[in-house]
Amino acid sequence: MSLLIVGTLAFDSIETPFGKAEKIIGGAATYIAWAASYFCHDIRLISIIGDDFPKEEITALANRGVDTNGLKIVSGGKSFYWAGKYSDNLSRRDTLITELNVLSEFDPVLPELYRTSDCLMLGNLTPDIQLQVMRQMKRRPRIITLDTMNYWMDTTWKDLLKALKQVDILSINDEEARQLSGEYSLVKAAKVIFSLGPKYLVIKKGEHGAFLFYQDHVFFAPALPLLEIQDPTGAGDSFAGGFMGYLANRKDQEFNTIKQAIICGSAMASFCVEAFGLDKLKNITGEELEQRVRQFREIVHVDF
Amino acid sequence: MSLLIVGTLAFDSIETPFGKAEKIIGGAATYIAWAASYFCHDIRLISIIGDDFPKEEITALANRGVDTNGLKIVSGGKSFYWAGKYSDNLSRRDTLITELNVLSEFDPVLPELYRTSDCLMLGNLTPDIQLQVMRQMKRRPRIITLDTMNYWMDTTWKDLLKALKQVDILSINDEEARQLSGEYSLVKAAKVIFSLGPKYLVIKKGEHGAFLFYQDHVFFAPALPLLEIQDPTGAGDSFAGGFMGYLANRKDQEFNTIKQAIICGSAMASFCVEAFGLDKLKNITGEELEQRVRQFREIVHVDF
Repeated sequence: MSLLIVGTLAFDSIETPFGKAEKIIGGAATYIAWAASYFCHDIRLISIIGDDFPKEEITALANRGVDTNGLKIVSGGKSFYWAGKYSDNLSRRDTLITELNVLSEFDPVLPELYRTSDCLMLGNLTPDIQLQVMRQMKRRPRIITLDTMNYWMDTTWKDLLKALKQVDILSINDEEARQLSGEYSLVKAAKVIFSLGPKYLVIKKGEHGAFLFYQDHVFFAPALPLLEIQDPTGAGDSFAGGFMGYLANRKDQEFNTIKQAIICGSAMASFCVEAFGLDKLKNITGEELEQRVRQFREIVHVDF
Repeated sequence: MSLLIVGTLAFDSIETPFGKAEKIIGGAATYIAWAASYFCHDIRLISIIGDDFPKEEITALANRGVDTNGLKIVSGGKSFYWAGKYSDNLSRRDTLITELNVLSEFDPVLPELYRTSDCLMLGNLTPDIQLQVMRQMKRRPRIITLDTMNYWMDTTWKDLLKALKQVDILSINDEEARQLSGEYSLVKAAKVIFSLGPKYLVIKKGEHGAFLFYQDHVFFAPALPLLEIQDPTGAGDSFAGGFMGYLANRKDQEFNTIKQAIICGSAMASFCVEAFGLDKLKNITGEELEQRVRQFREIVHVDF
């Protein structure tokens, strides 16, 4: 099945306690697409870049089965740029620079082919753009997942609620779930969020794993403790990519299938943080992926 | 088998976003003993209190199978008192008052019977007291678990290292594991900590669950998302109590058994936070306990 991804392609400058990287390739959609490409081979990408964005990066995506015809390249424009620095224990991230550049004129227009995509992943962007994309779909995708953040809750509350009404799965972190619902208990938060539209709630907790809420059920996938951690940037998007890539390749949407997708997303996030930027995410062998998924299952195994 | 517990009995004043409690019964050993009493019926307690400590609380412990002959009651003395306040999202706890009172003269003397206890739980106290207790054992307990905190790493480093050399299991949180080892990666931290003495490392992460490291293996138990959260005080100690209570009632110390103990500890911690102080921990039915343990297994279940 086909997967349509909407999100940013960007340059990132990143400083973590373990190193520094200047103007490397980043952006939510980049991470999502690379992670998804390990599970799904019919991916379409909607984004906007300047002509400063390296052509070989677009070729590399195309070589992974990503259709890049929906990529708007603004001649003479500069791509979105973000710079950030992580605290010593990685628990805090300070944004140093945000240059929207061409992103400020992002007005997504979906190529005809894209409008019948089976699955839709709305990366973290202004809810208005997420709504514009949904409006252009000719038939409703089988699964729509929306990623968002506290910033949109603070600034574009009404649009966010409008977007939420139309999606199947919401992906946010625990603090955002609490802010969105006004409830501290995540069990109560999930109930409030279900009433806003989504049937599934994915709560990403970074190095503390991820929850999946569905009706009265809850599933939890831990984050694997890793030998090497270099850079958490893009982990959440890699999670979303692995998650949606896996679902796009499955026929059913049973609860157990969504759980499996959570494990695949967690596996991709765990690869992502092992190196700066996309370095590891671009180079995962089938064997590594299989072993990683197995580790996620073993780590919670206990006989009673 | 018998379980010897060393730790504080205290008064706590607690303020959380969900309520307030003035001078209620607290202390590490209180929580440990109550939690352990659901699994083990031969518990011995070493602690010190003033005669302001309610006699009915000691009777209640005795009724749960806790031998309180090792409890030193200082006539005219005041029991240890702690007051603290939690931040809005419970992520931070500020200590408002610490009155050591009789705790400052704690010089543990083990009754003869206690010196041959099978299992030893060293609650969070100055490492010097933990060492004094270990020195008084006539034969080495089958399992010694030590709980400690960053404060002792900052102030009594040498004593702590001496104590660590003699224990089987160390129980700390993730930041403390990083501080103790000088490693950010918990996998690397575990290796350093194993070289200091312990064979098992339990990393408590509060609402984010718990890791168990053993040789090259790792096990993870999530924290259950709860409908009601009132007061996190004593959750770590309730965890330790459930963990050691379970182990004290098992003959073997296989890795799988230790994993089971982690689940039992997590279950007790989850009950603890549902009410202020000991309110829930004192009133758990067998059915509730069984159901809670089952929930901990179900929450990570996925078929592949």
